Amino acid sequence: VKSQTTKKRRYAILAPECFASRSAKTAHGVIAYGHDEVVAVVDPQHAGRTVRDVVSYLDSDAPIVSSVADALTYKPNALLVGTAPPGGALPAAWRDEILMALTSGLEVVSGLHEILADDGDFAEAAWRSDAAIWDVRIPTATPLFSGKAWTVKPYVLLTVGSDCAVGKMTVSLELVRAAAEKGRLPEFIATGQTGIMIAGRGIAVDHVLSDFATGAVESMVTAHGSATDLLVVEGQGGINHPAYAPVTLSLMFGAAPDGLVLVHDLARKVVEGYGTPILSYRTLIRSYEALLASVKPARVLGIALNTSSLNEEDAVAAIAAARAETGLPVDDLVRFGPGSFYDAIAPQLSEKTLPVRE
Amino acid sequence: VKSQTTKKRRYAILAPECFASRSAKTAHGVIAYGHDEVVAVVDPQHAGRTVRDVVSYLDSDAPIVSSVADALTYKPNALLVGTAPPGGALPAAWRDEILMALTSGLEVVSGLHEILADDGDFAEAAWRSDAAIWDVRIPTATPLFSGKAWTVKPYVLLTVGSDCAVGKMTVSLELVRAAAEKGRLPEFIATGQTGIMIAGRGIAVDHVLSDFATGAVESMVTAHGSATDLLVVEGQGGINHPAYAPVTLSLMFGAAPDGLVLVHDLARKVVEGYGTPILSYRTLIRSYEALLASVKPARVLGIALNTSSLNEEDAVAAIAAARAETGLPVDDLVRFGPGSFYDAIAPQLSEKTLPVRE
Repeated sequence: VKSQTTKKRRYAILAPECFASRSAKTAHGVIAYGHDEVVAVVDPQHAGRTVRDVVSYLDSDAPIVSSVADALTYKPNALLVGTAPPGGALPAAWRDEILMALTSGLEVVSGLHEILADDGDFAEAAWRSDAAIWDVRIPTATPLFSGKAWTVKPYVLLTVGSDCAVGKMTVSLELVRAAAEKGRLPEFIATGQTGIMIAGRGIAVDHVLSDFATGAVESMVTAHGSATDLLVVEGQGGINHPAYAPVTLSLMFGAAPDGLVLVHDLARKVVEGYGTPILSYRTLIRSYEALLASVKPARVLGIALNTSSLNEEDAVAAIAAARAETGLPVDDLVRFGPGSFYDAIAPQLSEKTLPVRE
Repeated sequence: VKSQTTKKRRYAILAPECFASRSAKTAHGVIAYGHDEVVAVVDPQHAGRTVRDVVSYLDSDAPIVSSVADALTYKPNALLVGTAPPGGALPAAWRDEILMALTSGLEVVSGLHEILADDGDFAEAAWRSDAAIWDVRIPTATPLFSGKAWTVKPYVLLTVGSDCAVGKMTVSLELVRAAAEKGRLPEFIATGQTGIMIAGRGIAVDHVLSDFATGAVESMVTAHGSATDLLVVEGQGGINHPAYAPVTLSLMFGAAPDGLVLVHDLARKVVEGYGTPILSYRTLIRSYEALLASVKPARVLGIALNTSSLNEEDAVAAIAAARAETGLPVDDLVRFGPGSFYDAIAPQLSEKTLPVRE
């Protein structure tokens, strides 16, 4: 089975019974930031409406249809599995839709932990129609960490957070956009399945064997030469997340950042699914900076908040409170645009740090 | 290919050109602490001598021979690959010896990242002779972390360290021995390849996909019922290790320990292979305790030092200095026996901690 096409994709996105919900965040991210075209979304619950009708902040009038068979009318050449449930297993009800796509010759792109190309039914269908299956979580390279990341030329900025799914990928993409507009040569380093679908490359760090996770991140950071002067690395998880903190630490030590941006969603009151506390800004900043201090120091340059749960007045007040608590630039980069936040941290985006030596 | 036998093993240990060196630490660990018999060691460099001749602290007069063919004289039923190089790849020169063992019907037990059963030549040889290949790094279970580890009944003690290979496994085994002698019902939880070979079970956390590493550790901690009142979890790496700290954090959050023992080798001046600093006792203690404080708090109960690089007078002085710096029980559990250190921390080995709630 072919593992990835190089052609420009025209996606149908599979998100049955969930396109309106946060569990379709992969679908939303690809529509909002991806370079590939999205021609249809499959979700019987909202069939007949458009993407914008259902998720108002997505600027797309792609139709929502009931099935992959219906989506074929819009001439997709790829099907994107638009969800990534905890554990990454494939919902059983989706099998027939994926088989229909493969039988119709569509490339299938999946970010699940479950490897679709390893499934006998899918592999056979793909083989018969010469369709590709791109399991984006299969890592492209898994060397051990060498320390080469400590001396890369571009400034390395890493987004970190208070929990999973608070907006680290979005903030990273907004910062790349703002930096490019100001004349920098930024590159987005994708480290999770949605980011990889958007960027067209990257390594899903959560699917790398633990011993090799720092090395996998390093391999992405060291793969960029003189065409780039700013690497914005998509963060994952959170340093106090009971289940996924090790992935976070792989990014911290593997990317060897020169600076951090802390991301938090004000709607989040406890760590989702576990009930442990969301730490204060100051405690989070101290936790991230203290761990990096013994290897290659990096400071938190600013805080990017998701204020979408608040009205504008409360959002502005929350931003001001975070500024007062930390003395750092704080903003909601989606609600108010990334420009002024980027300008506030930009002067520091050339001050590389050095690894610690005895 | 069969993946593991249940019979009592009589090991030949493969450690060519390295049995005397630290890179044979897997071999040394299995000889020192394993329940299986070791009938011969393969290392042409020391052929004709005994284990004790070459590594004086190993209490074994097993012969050292030149080849697997020579080892067959001593009737082994299994070959243990006695090394675990960084990255875990198989030295090319060892292939023929492993093939000889499989052809002779010996079970082959390997802790390498490289999976021997996936190698066509090895698989075919094993199939022909009905030999088993036990790749101990293949995890037996990889669920996601659920939080069940927070409420297990046994006291959970985790060894943590200043670097890799400072003695965490040895200290864990010595503590289990001391606890059993004092009437506790302890269990050693093996988390690395050597520990698994010693215990006959366990999960090599460094070979688990990052997202599942905490869950894999949790699955070991929750698998013990009323027959056990103390789980001693073998630590890995170090929280400030540039490459392997994420594995360390997987153990910290996955095992959800009630207490920690900090392990350090006084010969170690920088993090091996990377040159970043070994942190002070106080900084290490603060780093470990601070990370756990936001999820399920645990304190460092004492410090276990490897003083083998020092004469006895200097060792005693170093132990006293560590006591003075930290106010904790400190000892070298191998040099001076685990008894008095165990007695010093024993009163705390029933005070379970609770997860943090808002």
